[in-house]
Amino acid sequence: MPYINIKITDEGVTKAQKAKLIDGVTALLQRVLNKNPATTVVVIDEVNTDNWGIGGEQVTELRKRRS
Amino acid sequence: MPYINIKITDEGVTKAQKAKLIDGVTALLQRVLNKNPATTVVVIDEVNTDNWGIGGEQVTELRKRRS
Amino acid sequence: MPYINIKITDEGVTKAQKAKLIDGVTALLQRVLNKNPATTVVVIDEVNTDNWGIGGEQVTELRKRRS
Amino acid sequence: MPYINIKITDEGVTKAQKAKLIDGVTALLQRVLNKNPATTVVVIDEVNTDNWGIGGEQVTELRKRRS
Amino acid sequence: MPYINIKITDEGVTKAQKAKLIDGVTALLQRVLNKNPATTVVVIDEVNTDNWGIGGEQVTELRKRRS
Amino acid sequence: MPYINIKITDEGVTKAQKAKLIDGVTALLQRVLNKNPATTVVVIDEVNTDNWGIGGEQVTELRKRRS
Repeated sequence: MPYINIKITDEGVTKAQKAKLIDGVTALLQRVLNKNPATTVVVIDEVNTDNWGIGGEQVTELRKRRS
Repeated sequence: MPYINIKITDEGVTKAQKAKLIDGVTALLQRVLNKNPATTVVVIDEVNTDNWGIGGEQVTELRKRRS
Repeated sequence: MPYINIKITDEGVTKAQKAKLIDGVTALLQRVLNKNPATTVVVIDEVNTDNWGIGGEQVTELRKRRS
Repeated sequence: MPYINIKITDEGVTKAQKAKLIDGVTALLQRVLNKNPATTVVVIDEVNTDNWGIGGEQVTELRKRRS
Repeated sequence: MPYINIKITDEGVTKAQKAKLIDGVTALLQRVLNKNPATTVVVIDEVNTDNWGIGGEQVTELRKRRS
Repeated sequence: MPYINIKITDEGVTKAQKAKLIDGVTALLQRVLNKNPATTVVVIDEVNTDNWGIGGEQVTELRKRRS
């Protein structure tokens, strides 16, 4: 019955990668806590880099400086 | 003053249906807990079926198999 | 498959009232969007009034003034 | 290490305004709780006015009546 | 920079189990999306079984019937 | 009408500090986006250090090593 929310920046994550995140975290909850996969819910939010801040700065700006 | 967040898959929910969810959940909080509708906040998130997992699987795939 | 999170202040909500919120919101999602109750998840968070602000003020202080 | 999530209606917020929110809330956490900005994470969600309710009503409708 | 929120029922999860969830999900994000563990944040919420509903029913009641 | 959720570790935050967070973030939203404080909602979650991970590690362990 767990609910897992994964927030990541919206930078070209593929459908296959999302499937791996869903499968992987569902398996983790089963392995560690014996949770039933059938009722484990996973929601992935992809967030625009303008809308994500770390260190007081937008990720958009961080990415520019590092490229 | 309650805050309610409703997460559903993004599968053609209409504006009228969203209005019914907002009205319905606001009324529920008033009926059960006597909460003031004026400050009851409801936020609906529509999530792409690639980004929603249940049973370790993307809803996109679930929908394919069941159609 | 919906996920609903209800945040309310921690002010003596009973187990029976929580049951009514869970039942009511699950029924609402079924009625409006034909969602399957079996996989509808509801999580209620009760928040200390010191930790809830509205109008820039703690609910604890609001309650004092109004009592 | 704080995590701050800001939900606002999707009504033309500019990149510069988002930068100010990120910078401002990161500075607030440092000022009040001495939290390290380097690991302070801010996520801004912009929500369609059809999907935001207050007083049991969609913000879309509220905006119409007030304009 | 990902943020992961894991919600589970409050039923005796140990500190060691929480450590495994944190380590496991951080490793998953690195493996699938090459995310830097140093800035991956994980928050686990343990929710009272009275406050968690599935199928329109409190988990507290579900547990009683199944025991 | 904004909703702001602040998650911090549960390490002795005082009522007065919470009041400053609520007041500060409400003022920020008014200053940057002209949002009405009367309907700005702030919720602060204090999270046990066993339940918060960064760098794949519990904050409880991080704190031990650094003390």
